[in-house]
Amino acid sequence: MFESAELGHELTKAQYKQIEPKLRADLLDAQYQLASNGRFPVVIIISGVRGAGKGETVNLLNEWMDPRHIHTHAFDYPSDEERDRPPMWRFWRVLPPKGRIGILFGSWYTAPIIDRVFKRSKDKDLTAAIDRINQFEKMLADEGALILKFWFHLSKKRQKKRLRALQADKETRWRVTDRDWDFFKMYDRFYRVSETALRRTNTALAPWIVVEGTDERFRSVTVGKEILEALKKRLALRAERRKSKSQAAPIVHPVDGVHLLKRLDLSASLDKPAYEKRIDKLQRRLALAVRHPKFRDYNVVCVFEGMDAAGKGGAIRRVTAALDARYYHTIPVAAPTDEERAQPYLWRFWRHLPRKGGFTIYDRSWYGRVLVERIEGFCSEADWMRAYSEINEFEDQLVGNGAVVAKFWLQISKEEQLRRFKERERTRFKRFKITAEDWRNRKKWAAYQEAAADMIERTSTEHAPWTLVAANNKYHARVKVLDTLVDSLERALDSR
Amino acid sequence: MFESAELGHELTKAQYKQIEPKLRADLLDAQYQLASNGRFPVVIIISGVRGAGKGETVNLLNEWMDPRHIHTHAFDYPSDEERDRPPMWRFWRVLPPKGRIGILFGSWYTAPIIDRVFKRSKDKDLTAAIDRINQFEKMLADEGALILKFWFHLSKKRQKKRLRALQADKETRWRVTDRDWDFFKMYDRFYRVSETALRRTNTALAPWIVVEGTDERFRSVTVGKEILEALKKRLALRAERRKSKSQAAPIVHPVDGVHLLKRLDLSASLDKPAYEKRIDKLQRRLALAVRHPKFRDYNVVCVFEGMDAAGKGGAIRRVTAALDARYYHTIPVAAPTDEERAQPYLWRFWRHLPRKGGFTIYDRSWYGRVLVERIEGFCSEADWMRAYSEINEFEDQLVGNGAVVAKFWLQISKEEQLRRFKERERTRFKRFKITAEDWRNRKKWAAYQEAAADMIERTSTEHAPWTLVAANNKYHARVKVLDTLVDSLERALDSR
Repeated sequence: MFESAELGHELTKAQYKQIEPKLRADLLDAQYQLASNGRFPVVIIISGVRGAGKGETVNLLNEWMDPRHIHTHAFDYPSDEERDRPPMWRFWRVLPPKGRIGILFGSWYTAPIIDRVFKRSKDKDLTAAIDRINQFEKMLADEGALILKFWFHLSKKRQKKRLRALQADKETRWRVTDRDWDFFKMYDRFYRVSETALRRTNTALAPWIVVEGTDERFRSVTVGKEILEALKKRLALRAERRKSKSQAAPIVHPVDGVHLLKRLDLSASLDKPAYEKRIDKLQRRLALAVRHPKFRDYNVVCVFEGMDAAGKGGAIRRVTAALDARYYHTIPVAAPTDEERAQPYLWRFWRHLPRKGGFTIYDRSWYGRVLVERIEGFCSEADWMRAYSEINEFEDQLVGNGAVVAKFWLQISKEEQLRRFKERERTRFKRFKITAEDWRNRKKWAAYQEAAADMIERTSTEHAPWTLVAANNKYHARVKVLDTLVDSLERALDSR
Repeated sequence: MFESAELGHELTKAQYKQIEPKLRADLLDAQYQLASNGRFPVVIIISGVRGAGKGETVNLLNEWMDPRHIHTHAFDYPSDEERDRPPMWRFWRVLPPKGRIGILFGSWYTAPIIDRVFKRSKDKDLTAAIDRINQFEKMLADEGALILKFWFHLSKKRQKKRLRALQADKETRWRVTDRDWDFFKMYDRFYRVSETALRRTNTALAPWIVVEGTDERFRSVTVGKEILEALKKRLALRAERRKSKSQAAPIVHPVDGVHLLKRLDLSASLDKPAYEKRIDKLQRRLALAVRHPKFRDYNVVCVFEGMDAAGKGGAIRRVTAALDARYYHTIPVAAPTDEERAQPYLWRFWRHLPRKGGFTIYDRSWYGRVLVERIEGFCSEADWMRAYSEINEFEDQLVGNGAVVAKFWLQISKEEQLRRFKERERTRFKRFKITAEDWRNRKKWAAYQEAAADMIERTSTEHAPWTLVAANNKYHARVKVLDTLVDSLERALDSR
């Protein structure tokens, strides 16, 4: 991929002087249109070999455009808050919102490539990282992001020359460190590994643009022009025409109308004395498990979903009762804020991920995408269809980072829901739990049930399985939830 | 303050059973009203001696109320991201938004008290901390927060008994650590220090409620009732009646109409060759200063204010041109997002504070409160009047944490503004910089000037001084900005 970036491309001063003013004005125009239309974010990745002028070009971009709508982020060593979360968390937290340009100086490519160059990882790790990256960038593109990935290249000879020149000048000497020379020694390996990475992530949705880094004028104009062209092309597309390119297997509706929730036996029940005895024991076990010294390397992510009045709140409180208020958070999932709406769908869940040793309970969750948003038409079919794989990938990352992911679907019968709605209307401190929306949702019972059955089938994975909880009897449901949770947690703590 | 909390208060089981259901229902009702009216946040601080049942009570509050609208935060050791900012940053980041309840388990009281108990600080440090806390809580109250501070007390005898009891029980043994006994040894000192702290922070806006921690039923009902009463009282107040209680010195308008901006000589100018030579030198010095090893313990916070077209953007770019894109951020201050509107005014600036070694440039800033918000009537007079001292306090904290705070007011004449407006309309890539709003603001020139003069007078402090920049000539202005900035930074690096 790098051949044409070793041809010694350059622009004369005269050429540059001719091009620059118009390019600059056009970039500003395009950027301003982007900011005022606010329909999509622009993610610009700047990577490549050392000494190829990445920093200078980024500074120039900030000078050419309005820096108020650009956010440049560099990724040094992760902070402790970042190290406690899945590796992608630090990138999620700085994604540009719609209408803005985010320049990422270093990116999700850096660690996988460097680790492989210095043999801290194996080929299969690189392959896994690349798969993950492709999924992530596809998600970004599906969410509307314009992605531009620049790779600044220098031939081996040029890089050596460049480092030496920087070192010779008193003014720039500080910029060359031992680490640069360590990297230079690995040039050939770096070339091979990064070429592999680039080739396999050079997708239509997020293509690489390799730029020869030797000549400042050439590389700056190249980057500027590529950004301008991509921006103009994208701005010219009418919103309706930019349809998601996702293809997912179509949902198959069983012709006999039977789905797995219909087959769930809802008669399971427990009497109060038995319940109290069991719940007490389970809470003790849970309290012990989270105090286990090993738990500091873990965390728990619980998801509660279910029809209205299925008893999510009650079950959650039986879990939290065993926990120290210091270490858990309950995240109620409601309508997104405007900052959340300006980001990819999963962003508002990423932002609440617990640190190691933490315990987060999502009262409703990212599954809203394939439940309420699907049923109510809040997003397109393509959007909720791709959510299944995005969610699986997301939960995979949580598990990979030490999370125990426990997902509960609380199932009640339609009759039981009616009984509870009526009871809520009668009971003073429960009446705020029942709204007109609940009654509206109830009318779509069958559609919700079918969506839930699909969801469970498509997102119940080995590491993040769904637990179907028969919840007509609250005592039984709570015991089932705690039992499952304690069991998974204890197993995780035993395993490593 | 603790005498009445050593009387052995208790509630019988029968009394509790009679009170609890109604208290619980009323709390839920009040909480629901709060969530739906969304007018103010509730900040509940839970502090006090160890073993006094703080955790149990917090869990119970979460059980009584709807945990979806409560966020409980505990403060263990700060993370590295927190340690890099002023100590109050970690509290700012978890303040509850309007309509929500935030329970702070540990708070801004913890470190000042503990440091004094263990003699890591002096009396004057405690006094300074207390002053700061009073200002902070006054600000919260002025911003509309309902503040409830609970102190859980146990007599020395009771505490010993309680720790022993916890230790004797297999189930609770883990909760008693060596640290608890270390603290117990300091009981008398802790009593005296915390009494001092409480007495001096027991204000009308944020009163302390001391609760005897011995009897679980007594302490829970006490806390629940206090929260309920305060919530009900506050919810009953009509919005208009809750006027800010702030009193600030009235603004004095000089009867001759002369203010300091009128006396600024705007004729200073520089020709292009001289400018280029000087700016180049200054940028080199700036680049060197931020690469100084000591700079890792500092950061820079720059503020740019001035009339429209005063040249803020151009000056900012001359600063950033000397910096590595990795280490600076430009924060354009625009209309707040809905998450920002649900928080105290300064919240949206706190969230962007740089870490140590960082460089943040605010293009317009918190001074909007006393400029545009004052002139356009976006906030009440009481609100912008109190902003002067809140801002001084804020900047004090920045400086105390190692920040070099440089504030620039770029001053142009009214004629020069007109010339630039017209030029902007003519120049293609500058035309987005000029809007109808700019022309509207221009009509209020005198009012803005007067507000700016007030602002400069009231917020130019020794550690965070304003620099008035004569900006009719851009070259002169940019040199002045860089010169001042480089100078302050070099002085700071030399001083310690």
